[in-house]
Amino acid sequence: MDIKGFQFSAVEAAIKKPGRRDLALIYSEVPATACAVFTTNAVKAAPVILSRERIVSGIAQVLIVNSGNANACTGEQGMIAATETARLVAEGLGIAEETVQVASTGVIGVQMPMDRLRAGIPGAIDALTTGTLADVSEAIMTTDTFPKMEVKQVNIGTSGYTIAGIAKGAGMIMPNMATMLSFIITDATVDAPFLNLIFKQAINTSFNMISVDGDTSTNDTCLIMANGMAGNPVITAGTPEGAAFEQALNDVLLSLAKQIVLDGEGATKFVEIRVTGATTAVDAKRAAMAIANSSLVKTAFFGQDANWGRIFAAVGYSGAVVDQTRLSLSFNDVIMAQQGVFAGHDAEARGTEVLKENQFTVTVDLGMGSGTATVFTSDLSHEYVTINADYRT
Amino acid sequence: MDIKGFQFSAVEAAIKKPGRRDLALIYSEVPATACAVFTTNAVKAAPVILSRERIVSGIAQVLIVNSGNANACTGEQGMIAATETARLVAEGLGIAEETVQVASTGVIGVQMPMDRLRAGIPGAIDALTTGTLADVSEAIMTTDTFPKMEVKQVNIGTSGYTIAGIAKGAGMIMPNMATMLSFIITDATVDAPFLNLIFKQAINTSFNMISVDGDTSTNDTCLIMANGMAGNPVITAGTPEGAAFEQALNDVLLSLAKQIVLDGEGATKFVEIRVTGATTAVDAKRAAMAIANSSLVKTAFFGQDANWGRIFAAVGYSGAVVDQTRLSLSFNDVIMAQQGVFAGHDAEARGTEVLKENQFTVTVDLGMGSGTATVFTSDLSHEYVTINADYRT
Repeated sequence: MDIKGFQFSAVEAAIKKPGRRDLALIYSEVPATACAVFTTNAVKAAPVILSRERIVSGIAQVLIVNSGNANACTGEQGMIAATETARLVAEGLGIAEETVQVASTGVIGVQMPMDRLRAGIPGAIDALTTGTLADVSEAIMTTDTFPKMEVKQVNIGTSGYTIAGIAKGAGMIMPNMATMLSFIITDATVDAPFLNLIFKQAINTSFNMISVDGDTSTNDTCLIMANGMAGNPVITAGTPEGAAFEQALNDVLLSLAKQIVLDGEGATKFVEIRVTGATTAVDAKRAAMAIANSSLVKTAFFGQDANWGRIFAAVGYSGAVVDQTRLSLSFNDVIMAQQGVFAGHDAEARGTEVLKENQFTVTVDLGMGSGTATVFTSDLSHEYVTINADYRT
Repeated sequence: MDIKGFQFSAVEAAIKKPGRRDLALIYSEVPATACAVFTTNAVKAAPVILSRERIVSGIAQVLIVNSGNANACTGEQGMIAATETARLVAEGLGIAEETVQVASTGVIGVQMPMDRLRAGIPGAIDALTTGTLADVSEAIMTTDTFPKMEVKQVNIGTSGYTIAGIAKGAGMIMPNMATMLSFIITDATVDAPFLNLIFKQAINTSFNMISVDGDTSTNDTCLIMANGMAGNPVITAGTPEGAAFEQALNDVLLSLAKQIVLDGEGATKFVEIRVTGATTAVDAKRAAMAIANSSLVKTAFFGQDANWGRIFAAVGYSGAVVDQTRLSLSFNDVIMAQQGVFAGHDAEARGTEVLKENQFTVTVDLGMGSGTATVFTSDLSHEYVTINADYRT
């Protein structure tokens, strides 16, 4: 991966326990144009509060991220910890403190072990010339079972630029205007207001369209840094270059969002929920999210049970405008119900075959209008219960 | 149990499969003052649509209820089935068709086997002199592991009256203005508008305050019939007799609601969630329901993990007005966090002991105002997944 002017490191700081890399840096050799979207949860982690204030400047040069401790519900002491962390990174790199972004993920309600961070940060800075973005993607994992990364290269004549992103997810995933942790970097030169606009739009059709368990985290953060080191002419709105950049950015975010669902805690199924025919797009998303968050629907997916009635029930309480005599539902291309009633036992047998696949699409047509939405979700399995019953122990 | 003028029966009609009683009647020898509350789900089962129309008269004389088939998502044919069912009962008993209430619970999306109902109804009518309310409470079970019944006797001088209720629950439980199936009968003479008022209030502090899995069913029905056969002077609002009746009714409904949570699908814990200090009572319920419906909180209960941070996170996204620096939380009388921060490792050890109990209380104080709400919920266990992955097979 050739992404100019970025350096990476991931080291072991034993923040929760020894034995894995849990502290990482993404550093741009020059200050980068940056914007970020954070959790809408009223309970916000200290690093979210700090980073949110600082990103207003539109500039970031380094991100420090740790796993093992979320630094959430930690009060004044948590804010002091996040601020000191940023200061130590800024001093070590000789850059402005305001250009340091901080992110954390892990257990809620436990104070950050600052002695270990103080000891770990110099080593992380020293390692910057040797690490890779893949190293960082591993260091931010918590209950994730695989690291999540996507890279797109865009060619402009004989040169070009790269957009790369990483993410972590797995649990507490129903982002609402933001996601768990995701960091996007590009060496492209991009007009700042344009970047801001398309980044938020890309989030709305990717991270904001996934749900694993309906819980919105205290730490959700999605950050993009564009450092301009590719040397391309500035990319602006309303140009072919702008469109190409936007497409590549959308692809990276959608890929990362899907990877988060694929790695949903205990997930055995990847399900695309398409709602069509809603009164509005907002209503379509409402119906799709109700389906994606229903424990009864998700356990039926796990059980490979073509229980379309539970899906209709979820649509019915979603708050979307629904007329039960107009509802239709398909699993892949198998029509299970039309005008609100069952398509028959042949459909049952064929629908059950679809649900045995690892990935399938549920399409629900509300028959009311032209609003559509697509949401990605996983099933609810025994493994989800095991992971979350035992997470802290 | 002495409840005058009511007769009961429960017979085997093999609606889903043979081997258990699945068709039941509750019959009043005289037309009873009645009111009912039904599901708010936009997808409503045929018997709900029918019974809702008929209860407007304020009179009911008989309820026919079946398990094994919900008669939901069954279209025009489902409505014809519910209507014919009511007609057959009315003809068999020689009463007005409009006084028949119909309720169903079971699988969604499958047409009612009307041949079996036609064959079963005469036997159910013949058995009326021999059955008990307990028989009916068993016949309406689906995934319930025990029948749910509560009886209160109120004495007035040398005579008195009885209020008795039954319910079924277990899954698809987050009633919204109603519950799964619950039927309340009393031989008291009660003023109809007063009954209507206090019945709805009692539901709001009982069935509307429980959640097992956050799903609202297509079939929720709560019906009360007061036949006046106790011969007491009519009970009215603003009297000691009215207050005594209201208290007894509240007790019956709250008992049934708690029994539903105790028998929540796969439940190993019974948890009372008390939210205090909210801006309003509505906000308090919002926060309490977010806690009760969080998969992450519920799996932590199952794992006996005193993970109060997940509870704060749920409060944070609930939509209630929250200032994270004012939040406090206790497990029973063990303070886990105050002013948004952890109370320390001694609290951790003691809180973990509380979570090992089968029943405990979580109190969250928002520190904003005087709004309170109490919600009852269960945990999310492996057994829940097993039950719902395999329900139809």
